Amino acid sequence: MNIENLSQNKSFDGWHKQYRHHSSRLNCDMRFAIYLPPQATADNIVPVLYWLSGLTCTDENFMQKAGAQKIAAELGIAIVAPDTSPRGEGVADDSGYDLGMGAGFYVNATEAPWRDHYQMYDYIVTELPDLIESLFPVTTQRAIAGHSMGGHGALTIALKNPDRYCSVSAFSPICNPSNCPWGEKAFSAYLGKDREAWKQYDACELMEQATQPLPALVDQGSADNFLTEQLMPDRLESAARHINFPLEIRIQEGYDHSYYFIASFIEEHMRFHAQHLCEH
Amino acid sequence: MNIENLSQNKSFDGWHKQYRHHSSRLNCDMRFAIYLPPQATADNIVPVLYWLSGLTCTDENFMQKAGAQKIAAELGIAIVAPDTSPRGEGVADDSGYDLGMGAGFYVNATEAPWRDHYQMYDYIVTELPDLIESLFPVTTQRAIAGHSMGGHGALTIALKNPDRYCSVSAFSPICNPSNCPWGEKAFSAYLGKDREAWKQYDACELMEQATQPLPALVDQGSADNFLTEQLMPDRLESAARHINFPLEIRIQEGYDHSYYFIASFIEEHMRFHAQHLCEH
Repeated sequence: MNIENLSQNKSFDGWHKQYRHHSSRLNCDMRFAIYLPPQATADNIVPVLYWLSGLTCTDENFMQKAGAQKIAAELGIAIVAPDTSPRGEGVADDSGYDLGMGAGFYVNATEAPWRDHYQMYDYIVTELPDLIESLFPVTTQRAIAGHSMGGHGALTIALKNPDRYCSVSAFSPICNPSNCPWGEKAFSAYLGKDREAWKQYDACELMEQATQPLPALVDQGSADNFLTEQLMPDRLESAARHINFPLEIRIQEGYDHSYYFIASFIEEHMRFHAQHLCEH
Repeated sequence: MNIENLSQNKSFDGWHKQYRHHSSRLNCDMRFAIYLPPQATADNIVPVLYWLSGLTCTDENFMQKAGAQKIAAELGIAIVAPDTSPRGEGVADDSGYDLGMGAGFYVNATEAPWRDHYQMYDYIVTELPDLIESLFPVTTQRAIAGHSMGGHGALTIALKNPDRYCSVSAFSPICNPSNCPWGEKAFSAYLGKDREAWKQYDACELMEQATQPLPALVDQGSADNFLTEQLMPDRLESAARHINFPLEIRIQEGYDHSYYFIASFIEEHMRFHAQHLCEH
């Protein structure tokens, strides 16, 4: 197996580790981070929370800034943080921070030049979990969460694969990418001009067609600069209410779009996921 | 007052804020961060933990990575994180990461060209607390802590000013800078070749002469790459034992020099300080 351990740090009596591996789906080398809580041993496998980060992030932001490892160590949950796009020489890029490297939007691109590498949906849903579950002492119980672009990723991936995840949560997700500047730019590039093709990656559209419930929690700061133009959780809430989907959206007064917001509420998200991971 | 609020983020129901102000002692503009827990109001002032960071750091590293704000919010303690050196155009610098900007070593430099700005000892002991205590809802109860170069700073400043601090703690401190490569390089530049002048900024030397006890806690990872060449906590422990100083040094098995180590034990340090801050 073509995988290299790049670093390891003891953390809350468990281990934070970074790896590089070759992704066949993305057709490039990828880095990810995993936190293995002290409970994870050859004799005791643990469930996994996948964390999808936002624009410009790598595998490092959540692991360094969210304060999640303390809770993961208490609850016995592993955390996997992938990168936010394919990277490297030969991978298409854009000068903007919101397209190309660091901005994969968790879709399978169909348009040139992006389609050669930007297949993040398949990578997150299948290739990476297959790798994680073959290499580390983890179960196939999975939860998924993310922030901003990664909140969009978590919600869409969970709504499309309710059998693969026990629960989903998001901080400040891009809820309706088909109708906001970030999403319109990225989807036009990755998926082309036909807006019908965008619907399969839009949480509001997917929610309207959801047939299988999945516990879902969203936190949104009221002082988030991107709230009204880019995020629009009210649209997701309407769609969920319409079909009676078990989604809780909480507006957190005074919080912004930063990792200080995530850190303030990550413990509640971890406990939410633990409750549903343990049901199975 | 020449002070500018650069940012603010709600965090654990309190506020993380960054400020820029003109330091007369350092003769340049300086940035610092403060965390104000929710208990800090005009009617309820709270004690302050000063955090001194290590080489290459700014006011941001601890605030983003240590996970301390959760505990500070619970305990009702403010945290102040200054920068690690003077900065800006006209401030002397060196091409190494361990001298000049980002490497002030918390001393008052006496040698050219450093003495024009590198007066970090006075800034941390007097000028910054005066500013903090005049502007924010805090008491004059102070604790001090730090990491690596900042652990050296915290220990030396506390040992020299036991009346100004209720307690001191350090992660991976440079315990005997007069006799390690980092310290010898910095002290030669800032203080000159006369090693007698170095003793006033060396925790081992100061410990041997300490006449007033102060609760002190040190955590050191056993897997720290800098342990034997740069940090040498055994020397500090010997000096403390010799005079029966209330210093506890704990070797934490398998932990390294990173913020993952700090995050793993910051709660214990915060509770240690809270206990002594509340005594007064």
